Amino acid sequence: MNNNPIGVFDSGIGGLTVAREIVKQLPHESIIYLGDTARVPYGTRSKEIVIKFALELANFLLRRKVKSLVVACNTISAVALDKIKNISPVPILDVIAPAVKKGVRATKNKRIGVIGTSGTIQSGAYALQIKKIDPRIKVFSVSCPLFVPLAEEGLHKHQATRLIAKDYLDELVRLKIDTLILGCTHYPLLYDTITEILGPKVTLIDSAQPTIESLKKVLEEKGLISENNNPTYEFYVTDAPGRVYQVTRRFFGSKLKGKIKKVSLGD
Amino acid sequence: MNNNPIGVFDSGIGGLTVAREIVKQLPHESIIYLGDTARVPYGTRSKEIVIKFALELANFLLRRKVKSLVVACNTISAVALDKIKNISPVPILDVIAPAVKKGVRATKNKRIGVIGTSGTIQSGAYALQIKKIDPRIKVFSVSCPLFVPLAEEGLHKHQATRLIAKDYLDELVRLKIDTLILGCTHYPLLYDTITEILGPKVTLIDSAQPTIESLKKVLEEKGLISENNNPTYEFYVTDAPGRVYQVTRRFFGSKLKGKIKKVSLGD
Repeated sequence: MNNNPIGVFDSGIGGLTVAREIVKQLPHESIIYLGDTARVPYGTRSKEIVIKFALELANFLLRRKVKSLVVACNTISAVALDKIKNISPVPILDVIAPAVKKGVRATKNKRIGVIGTSGTIQSGAYALQIKKIDPRIKVFSVSCPLFVPLAEEGLHKHQATRLIAKDYLDELVRLKIDTLILGCTHYPLLYDTITEILGPKVTLIDSAQPTIESLKKVLEEKGLISENNNPTYEFYVTDAPGRVYQVTRRFFGSKLKGKIKKVSLGD
Repeated sequence: MNNNPIGVFDSGIGGLTVAREIVKQLPHESIIYLGDTARVPYGTRSKEIVIKFALELANFLLRRKVKSLVVACNTISAVALDKIKNISPVPILDVIAPAVKKGVRATKNKRIGVIGTSGTIQSGAYALQIKKIDPRIKVFSVSCPLFVPLAEEGLHKHQATRLIAKDYLDELVRLKIDTLILGCTHYPLLYDTITEILGPKVTLIDSAQPTIESLKKVLEEKGLISENNNPTYEFYVTDAPGRVYQVTRRFFGSKLKGKIKKVSLGD
């Protein structure tokens, strides 16, 4: 048993969809969430700068005695995971490996689509991991850079979003994928729009659920499960304009208790 | 006469529309451009963090012996101008005051619209400066947070952008403005789409031209005009993924010579 909190971090607030899944699957666990809202988005930045920023985020949480780290950002998972593993004494879960495993299990025609930010797609991390499990699977990757700002502005059901999504996804329809991995923690908000374009036969794989299933397994194996009946949730961001509060509700649901605190990194 | 370069800085690469105007109006001037592509966009961030970042940018240019500073970013101009003036020994031009003057001269029905990022609009800087010149003018401000990502992704003529622009601007049509200030250096790319929605009778005011007219006047008054027949253009960004090169052409035109160099700030 270990009642220390789980550290969850993201470039911004999209990772709250992952934190929400911890609350659902592991209701006795305390959480410290850190979102780098002063420097979001990471998806269009270089590998080098994402690694620099990611290590600052991980160090912040490690100093706060978290018992495990959840990298709730696909871009960070895609380009900085090894570097974070190098500095972390606690178990690390990323959002890519669990989604890959679930996707590989789900596909019947061996044609998987992956969507994500430019950084995630350019890294090739998904294709690489899928092919390591089953080299016969064909992977088709498309970057969807406007999905994050559209989701954050609450336009995920807007006709404009539908048009942009059609531009991004039409090729995947033509390529007859039967499984689509949502390679960004913001994308679950676009679930309905994506389903509308791909049709009901394509299985959508969201990272949050399989990631937290993996986390649960790791915590159980290592005897780190909490039995705390009053878990605490702390939220830190590196910049806190009014909109963070507003947008946070959209991603974490109504369960967000307590204040969002602002912290400085990299000074 | 002074052949030192003019320092131009922006949160990203939108300010290149202003640098381009220097090349046009002041062809003998050398330019050092700095875009904070590692932390762009600023428009959704807090005043406090924009000031911190802006001072880092200004200091970088001042260390390189620029003879004047052009704040080619409306968000920085709106929230950090006084702080930059406090540390700068050289003349500073911002993009708000010149556009305000031009807008006030242009309006006949005394109804001016202003569009910009959330940070710029929330600052109230435009309305304040317009009313200082003519308190009878009615100012209607609308933030258009998706215009920057849409322009950077090259979707400025996309049907989706038209739909989003209609959502943002319909109210200004109803309010019968006769002048619209484009309060963001990215927005000139959306000129046609905006004109289509507002109709041909509304005058659009872009900051770049009046800002560089003001700069020219200041340099002349202070005897700082260059007579260099081989001016140099240096471009620095804080992060340089491949897309910066690509997008840069869209904003600066074909005149971008030389390499874009990457620099580190705030370390």
